[in-house]
Amino acid sequence: MIHQQQLQFSTRGRGTFNISREVDDVIANSGITQGICQVFIHHTSASLILCENADPTVRTDLETFMKKIAPDGDSMFQHIDEGPDDMPAHVRTVLTQSSLSFPVNGGRDTLGTWQGIYLWEHRVHPHNRKVTITVMGE
Amino acid sequence: MIHQQQLQFSTRGRGTFNISREVDDVIANSGITQGICQVFIHHTSASLILCENADPTVRTDLETFMKKIAPDGDSMFQHIDEGPDDMPAHVRTVLTQSSLSFPVNGGRDTLGTWQGIYLWEHRVHPHNRKVTITVMGE
Amino acid sequence: MIHQQQLQFSTRGRGTFNISREVDDVIANSGITQGICQVFIHHTSASLILCENADPTVRTDLETFMKKIAPDGDSMFQHIDEGPDDMPAHVRTVLTQSSLSFPVNGGRDTLGTWQGIYLWEHRVHPHNRKVTITVMGE
Repeated sequence: MIHQQQLQFSTRGRGTFNISREVDDVIANSGITQGICQVFIHHTSASLILCENADPTVRTDLETFMKKIAPDGDSMFQHIDEGPDDMPAHVRTVLTQSSLSFPVNGGRDTLGTWQGIYLWEHRVHPHNRKVTITVMGE
Repeated sequence: MIHQQQLQFSTRGRGTFNISREVDDVIANSGITQGICQVFIHHTSASLILCENADPTVRTDLETFMKKIAPDGDSMFQHIDEGPDDMPAHVRTVLTQSSLSFPVNGGRDTLGTWQGIYLWEHRVHPHNRKVTITVMGE
Repeated sequence: MIHQQQLQFSTRGRGTFNISREVDDVIANSGITQGICQVFIHHTSASLILCENADPTVRTDLETFMKKIAPDGDSMFQHIDEGPDDMPAHVRTVLTQSSLSFPVNGGRDTLGTWQGIYLWEHRVHPHNRKVTITVMGE
């Protein structure tokens, strides 16, 4: 059995957005009890992470870390057509995930207690982001 | 066909642990000859990597690299509730993998000669880590 | 349904190579209309990324970024048997992907307009690289 569904998210600019509930709803709708779930984002300047979901400073610190290793407007970058956050957004995407996969069991996700699914918008300005969720199993 | 099995690993604190044999046993038990294998870790301060399995200094150097870009106790981090290795563990997890996927063929993994599956414990102290392996195919 | 096919690529040394067309051909050959595609590279010194496919300076900048955070010949690295680019190649592989997964729909990939599939050779000298593509679905 395969269940595939596309979702749209409007981000508010750079930052992390918990999409766990939306993903769980798709798994529930799929009717699949055991298998895998794949969450895919169709962009190169926003990405996906599984991240600690209790203390928001974890995600603040991830921003700080990324700003340190790939600073906006850094002179090492030539690809600056869309602004100082353009190339850092591509770097952050390549260092994180465009696709997350995890097991489905008992008709639901099997994420750890502290694992949340986050869409990470890397551009400073708001964007519409397309995500496709595929559940495969029985 | 789907085969799903959960494993527990007791780490000895920060470091890499080769779990290739345990994963291979699950593939063998699955009876699946062709398809994919997904290895998933249910934590946000330990992760998975496919890494060179011959010279242990490769994994020593990976520790050195991570300590350099995300140093324990660095003043850029606010999330320090559980100690100086707390936030660096989340950063390392986000930069590596919570889920590894690879092809299964001939009833076994198809990893390259030098590819080993490693559980990377990022916390300084020992932890119990839960991993789920899902094999799908025919 | 499962379709699995192995491809060989001869790289020209360090750099990114667009393999989207080759992957698309495998999807078309599979006869699978809906499901997932997994692209796997069987090496620890070359990797895969989904990257912006319009402006080549994006990929030049990714090289610059990697050279900055994991410089060839850096004194922090002990694993230098095969030269100054040996350990940086392993670091780059661990920071990017050995496996890419994305949805298949309508008998083709569902990658975003700007997403290209790239094989990233991290060694300075040319190498032969083995990639396996698995398409699962119906």
